[in-house]
Amino acid sequence: MKFTVDRAVLLKALAHVQSVVERRNTIPILANVLLEARDGGLRLTATDMEIAVVEEVPGVTVTRTGRTTAPAATLFELVRKLPEAAKIELDHPGGDSQLTLRAGRFDAKLAVLPVEDFPSMTEGKLPHRFALPAGQLRELIDRTRFAISTEETRYYLNGIYFHATEAGGAKVLRAVATDGHRLARVEEPLPDGASEMPGVIIPRKTVNELRKLAEEVQDEIAIALSDTKIRFTLGPVQLTSKLIDGTFPEYERVIPRGNDKILKVTKKAFAEAVGRVAGISSERSRPVKLSVDRNHLLLSAASAELGQAQEELDGDVVSYEHAPIEIGFQARYLNDITDQIADTVEFRFSDGSAPTIVTDSAKPEALYVLMPMRV
Amino acid sequence: MKFTVDRAVLLKALAHVQSVVERRNTIPILANVLLEARDGGLRLTATDMEIAVVEEVPGVTVTRTGRTTAPAATLFELVRKLPEAAKIELDHPGGDSQLTLRAGRFDAKLAVLPVEDFPSMTEGKLPHRFALPAGQLRELIDRTRFAISTEETRYYLNGIYFHATEAGGAKVLRAVATDGHRLARVEEPLPDGASEMPGVIIPRKTVNELRKLAEEVQDEIAIALSDTKIRFTLGPVQLTSKLIDGTFPEYERVIPRGNDKILKVTKKAFAEAVGRVAGISSERSRPVKLSVDRNHLLLSAASAELGQAQEELDGDVVSYEHAPIEIGFQARYLNDITDQIADTVEFRFSDGSAPTIVTDSAKPEALYVLMPMRV
Repeated sequence: MKFTVDRAVLLKALAHVQSVVERRNTIPILANVLLEARDGGLRLTATDMEIAVVEEVPGVTVTRTGRTTAPAATLFELVRKLPEAAKIELDHPGGDSQLTLRAGRFDAKLAVLPVEDFPSMTEGKLPHRFALPAGQLRELIDRTRFAISTEETRYYLNGIYFHATEAGGAKVLRAVATDGHRLARVEEPLPDGASEMPGVIIPRKTVNELRKLAEEVQDEIAIALSDTKIRFTLGPVQLTSKLIDGTFPEYERVIPRGNDKILKVTKKAFAEAVGRVAGISSERSRPVKLSVDRNHLLLSAASAELGQAQEELDGDVVSYEHAPIEIGFQARYLNDITDQIADTVEFRFSDGSAPTIVTDSAKPEALYVLMPMRV
Repeated sequence: MKFTVDRAVLLKALAHVQSVVERRNTIPILANVLLEARDGGLRLTATDMEIAVVEEVPGVTVTRTGRTTAPAATLFELVRKLPEAAKIELDHPGGDSQLTLRAGRFDAKLAVLPVEDFPSMTEGKLPHRFALPAGQLRELIDRTRFAISTEETRYYLNGIYFHATEAGGAKVLRAVATDGHRLARVEEPLPDGASEMPGVIIPRKTVNELRKLAEEVQDEIAIALSDTKIRFTLGPVQLTSKLIDGTFPEYERVIPRGNDKILKVTKKAFAEAVGRVAGISSERSRPVKLSVDRNHLLLSAASAELGQAQEELDGDVVSYEHAPIEIGFQARYLNDITDQIADTVEFRFSDGSAPTIVTDSAKPEALYVLMPMRV
């Protein structure tokens, strides 16, 4: 294998694939990236056995085809430190010879491991295929991933649940995540070809890698999936992942139906006031209390050692026409939700001890449920 | 005590003083800042019993004089989160009543602790007084502090040694730090009034706090010291610190005299090449080997698992006219020194196993000694 490539091109592709490599792993080959130089160009692959990322690298001049595997983090680090305009030559004579990287008067020889040891993630059949605009996929992820559970024992909550359903008479692709304290649910129009797809739970790490890759994509992302695997094609990059083998809970049951006390509050004023009153306490899980009265909202928090803080918001930024209510939430949970909302936050309360619904006035297809804390 | 102050003014002063407060400490009063509103204005004080920072805050409208102490980190956090243009009122009726902070429709009540419990750092007499241009103090710190030892057992190396001495016939103020692996020594002209000062070891934390404060200062910094304490006056801020009670080693003994093999190398090319070849190894303490020959420098590093890397530098950026030499250094130690050098790095070697001198061609008053590693 022998080829030359611009540093910027190789760096970008290596950044994508090495990101899935676990920094600490006990299986040496999983620290490596598979390099395949073919007549058509270069292909890079990295995997952690759960996720595989494959990237076709453009603009590569291959003078000898071949394949090998080399330490992903080291290769990335060396390429990153080369001068911006560097031309890089990678040369591997075959077998267990070292891989030589040359650029100007720098050269490195990297230990390789046999291509045969590199695990291939067989995809099996992926019968459900559809395409989703990149912007919609980003929305589905951004509005839900903060609510993914980190409790390993509830492994079926350690991801985002994607499924096809109906809402308000329209077919939708819905994303849901919950950690038992809050739930996030958002939907986008169901793409052609997705109506028969099974509900699938995409693991957190896959969600995070996918989100990074989706940042750069303008157009559609092709998705193919089965009951156990999912594959995303983002231009030259393919990310394939196992799905979480579990049953997502019947989340609709926890979404209250009768909440009729509606508070509308300007996002900026509300989020900043939450941040300020929560500043009185260094304990992350201390509640912020909302005392809501006619067109008036008092936010307050207290710490036994440090003191208490409060801020009033009123008619300019608050609208509320119902009976007074007092209710407490974790400041961080409030901010996780308001971070997703541009202009106006809408709360729908039942009473001070019941689950509350939060929505974005500008995007009714996004819905959040928050469990209150005793205050 | 009652006064009003602009958020920006209070935030800046709190940032300075709260920085010395230890995040974890078992003595509650040390978490607090002392606020003293007098006819002349406001004074803030914070201390960790080793260092005290006192700041006179300008532009404060005092309507009732008085003193109290409040949690420094919380007060800083609340002020930081207020809107940029906020006017802040602080109001303390006296005794153990809470301190009220008001700004617009936000208010907080903070627990206070008695002023009487706040430790005062008695300075004693500080007979040696002189002034140093801020730029010179920054140089003395920047060129030496990376070499301060972190080994607590060698407490007398946990700071920078400042003393008055002679060099090349001129009187100088010299700063020295060493951790046994490298030594940094730099000097500036001795200010008037400093010739009788004792040699003093300024602890690392003091050095770091001082450096932060000195960043903003353009003119002279007044220094007053005794055998046991030192005080820096930087405009409205006074930093007083205990000195390390120990004897700094006779460092001149480890500075070799006979090193006559001189290598000059362009800083940028050298530092980047060191970074690249060191990229082959993830172990921080692996040496980079310098193989020096006539106007030629080969940098190389190796890792048993990952491979090896090398880079050649030659006549364009290297000048060397002596017998060939091979010598190894920790990459990080080389970079710590080259970070301080603008254009040309000058090495003075004896042989491959002897201490090496490194200097900055543009600033001969700065000198570094590096112990080689076996390669």
